[in-house]
Amino acid sequence: MKFYKSLAVLSGGLDSSVALAQSLKSTMPATHAVFFHYGSKHNDRELVSARAIAKHYDVPLTVIEIDFARWGFKSNLLEGQGEIPEGHYEDESMRSTVVPFRNGIMLSIAAGLAESLELDAVLIGSHFGDHAIYPDCRVAFNDPMRQAIKAGTYREIELSTPFARNDKWYIVKEGHRLGVPMCMTWSCYKGGERHCGKCGTCVERKEAFLKADVLDQTVYE
Amino acid sequence: MKFYKSLAVLSGGLDSSVALAQSLKSTMPATHAVFFHYGSKHNDRELVSARAIAKHYDVPLTVIEIDFARWGFKSNLLEGQGEIPEGHYEDESMRSTVVPFRNGIMLSIAAGLAESLELDAVLIGSHFGDHAIYPDCRVAFNDPMRQAIKAGTYREIELSTPFARNDKWYIVKEGHRLGVPMCMTWSCYKGGERHCGKCGTCVERKEAFLKADVLDQTVYE
Repeated sequence: MKFYKSLAVLSGGLDSSVALAQSLKSTMPATHAVFFHYGSKHNDRELVSARAIAKHYDVPLTVIEIDFARWGFKSNLLEGQGEIPEGHYEDESMRSTVVPFRNGIMLSIAAGLAESLELDAVLIGSHFGDHAIYPDCRVAFNDPMRQAIKAGTYREIELSTPFARNDKWYIVKEGHRLGVPMCMTWSCYKGGERHCGKCGTCVERKEAFLKADVLDQTVYE
Repeated sequence: MKFYKSLAVLSGGLDSSVALAQSLKSTMPATHAVFFHYGSKHNDRELVSARAIAKHYDVPLTVIEIDFARWGFKSNLLEGQGEIPEGHYEDESMRSTVVPFRNGIMLSIAAGLAESLELDAVLIGSHFGDHAIYPDCRVAFNDPMRQAIKAGTYREIELSTPFARNDKWYIVKEGHRLGVPMCMTWSCYKGGERHCGKCGTCVERKEAFLKADVLDQTVYE
């Protein structure tokens, strides 16, 4: 059987950590991971988790610095810009946390890096629950992006989106089954010492563990 | 008639300068331009030209710094990496100058910036002659990329590729017709004081003027 090697986009969150773990049991294991340090409020805390997960799975991690704010991008997710709203992930107010075309940008950079590293695919853990507010997590985005990356690279690099049609609770269940150390992952947009438990991504995290019927070992404020 | 506003990707070269000029006569004028300072050998020289063209057409220019080399990308086009080969643009050796998925990355960043600036489209001057060695200049790349950008942004941003099916000599003819100050544009990959006249992109530039039957005012070494 031929094995293909993939580059995992690793944010240190639940979704990308489980995607990485799952790939290691597949015919397209992640042999390298990439983290984007792009100036979000929780980015430094995410990096701590990404490094821990990459180390746990013994996968080398490339950290790429991008400076959305300096580039003129607007988003409350970015350091020095507006407040992170509290409440439900799908709420209209959460739209203020969208970084325009962030996934498109990350996937493009990952595609170029995968080509340089002579890998065969890029792996991203975006999921169906992201769809409500993130247009660049939707299947309608993933499918043409997959074609663009394949047509635009010499190695005809694939885009792997294993959770595109799954909800977050499925990812928690899968993480539990695979023994992923989910307590090491980070979600909270506020990036404090502990998960705030109130922002959209904390609420979503809590609900996913509940719905998956898996013990949530996250320490919330 | 409704006017849409576009963000022009401006490299300071012939193609992007003519694309910008042409847009100003259309219903989708470029009201902003973006230059990518990404560490190629000719990048500083390109920036001088991009600034001059943007000023000539009175369009504000955002300069975005990206550091492909530090990100681990490999290409002889980048500062500190291998030699720029001489000869014909389509030659196999010119493949060493390809920066993996560069256009995909630039278009993605431009799409995010266009969304932040509340513009309607991204304009790129890539043309049919680029196809031989750049997979991310081909129609097979442009078409899905267009869909991905549209699906992945709230403003459903368009991707405009006016020269995708034209050769460079057509662009020279069009630039001549529109009175574009083409002598102010920069092509040479070596980025010296004058165009070297020998690298792939200089050879292509010379041939385009010849074929278009337009006086080439470029000063070559």
